[in-house]
Amino acid sequence: MTEKKRTTIVLFSGDYDKAMAAYIIANGAAAYDHEVTIFHTFWGLNALRKEEEIEVEKGFIEKMFAKMMPKGADKMGLSKMHFAGFGPKMIKNVMKKHNALTLPQLIEMAQEQDVKLVACTMTMDLLGLKEEELLDNIEYAGVAAYLADAEDGNVNLFI
Amino acid sequence: MTEKKRTTIVLFSGDYDKAMAAYIIANGAAAYDHEVTIFHTFWGLNALRKEEEIEVEKGFIEKMFAKMMPKGADKMGLSKMHFAGFGPKMIKNVMKKHNALTLPQLIEMAQEQDVKLVACTMTMDLLGLKEEELLDNIEYAGVAAYLADAEDGNVNLFI
Amino acid sequence: MTEKKRTTIVLFSGDYDKAMAAYIIANGAAAYDHEVTIFHTFWGLNALRKEEEIEVEKGFIEKMFAKMMPKGADKMGLSKMHFAGFGPKMIKNVMKKHNALTLPQLIEMAQEQDVKLVACTMTMDLLGLKEEELLDNIEYAGVAAYLADAEDGNVNLFI
Repeated sequence: MTEKKRTTIVLFSGDYDKAMAAYIIANGAAAYDHEVTIFHTFWGLNALRKEEEIEVEKGFIEKMFAKMMPKGADKMGLSKMHFAGFGPKMIKNVMKKHNALTLPQLIEMAQEQDVKLVACTMTMDLLGLKEEELLDNIEYAGVAAYLADAEDGNVNLFI
Repeated sequence: MTEKKRTTIVLFSGDYDKAMAAYIIANGAAAYDHEVTIFHTFWGLNALRKEEEIEVEKGFIEKMFAKMMPKGADKMGLSKMHFAGFGPKMIKNVMKKHNALTLPQLIEMAQEQDVKLVACTMTMDLLGLKEEELLDNIEYAGVAAYLADAEDGNVNLFI
Repeated sequence: MTEKKRTTIVLFSGDYDKAMAAYIIANGAAAYDHEVTIFHTFWGLNALRKEEEIEVEKGFIEKMFAKMMPKGADKMGLSKMHFAGFGPKMIKNVMKKHNALTLPQLIEMAQEQDVKLVACTMTMDLLGLKEEELLDNIEYAGVAAYLADAEDGNVNLFI
């Protein structure tokens, strides 16, 4: 019995293009039969937010964070070439033209391929994000769980 | 027979300083007899662009991307301290003063040391970049080829 | 005798939140008995700067760099959500509310856990930083030393 190869990605970034890169690598690795974990921390948690408004109890600062941060993968901005919001739109047009998968589609594909999507509980706490606001069928864990996966990983990336 | 150690770098960033870091690590690893691959994706592809204008057929959006993105390693900006373009110039002056290698020189050295420079075909397609516009003697591949190199890698980085 | 697991982090970024992520992973890995190295290069060196003004001989450009770069971990900005400096303050308030460790506290904890903190001599040279300006009890090395640690690393990250 050969052990499965393992890929782990820390998704720290809240940029659409970086999250795309993370999910493309994750889906590729899953297709090559790796066990894959994406550990979403800090701004990377935004990729896991549900699009609809979810009613949860929040303090003032937590409400502000919730307002200021993009609500879900589709709302995230680019790391480069914003041009007053023109950049993301252009990229999405280009992606449509080339039939490239959008970030929400890449996330769905990852879930179908059993990529383990983890939300970092420590930063959820800091940013005031509740489980109800995040996608279904994800896991919740801290840095110890990440390290347990990564220390046997073949490909470990921080994005 | 001992197997060679292996280093792979995904160069996602289009920043001069991050690309420098990538190429310094790559050249160091090659000097220590690692097999080294730099997989250029998204904005990192700009490091591989030729400086001169190359005539290729492009659609409107592809032409805009081509205009907006830096043409070659020497034109890339800094990740920090832009100060209206003052930062990159200052860094380059400082580098000259310290006889540090410039990014184009680091890329040339990498090619001499047989570092495998790969351009990501999927993002070339998205950004409308053609092979004629990129440096000679590089390879073209997708995420599967990257993963094949990385899964046996000793040092795998995403920059 | 089992060999210790090993984690290495290149801290390239000068952002408070990214440095926090680096030190949280490093402290976690040290707690799980990994040998841990953080190699501070480029803007990541700012995390190691002493807060007080240190008198050292500098040229004009080096003085400008010294002025423009944050003096120590506590002065670093966020990678996202600056809002004219409002972001970092909000994050720090939230951290205090949740009793989360600040970056200076995380660095101190790393030193207590024998995480090896290394300053990249090549970029110290470029940015004009002197040993006297950096924290005590750190090491000074170049890319070769980093690679020697990383090539046997279980978890190698570039942040």
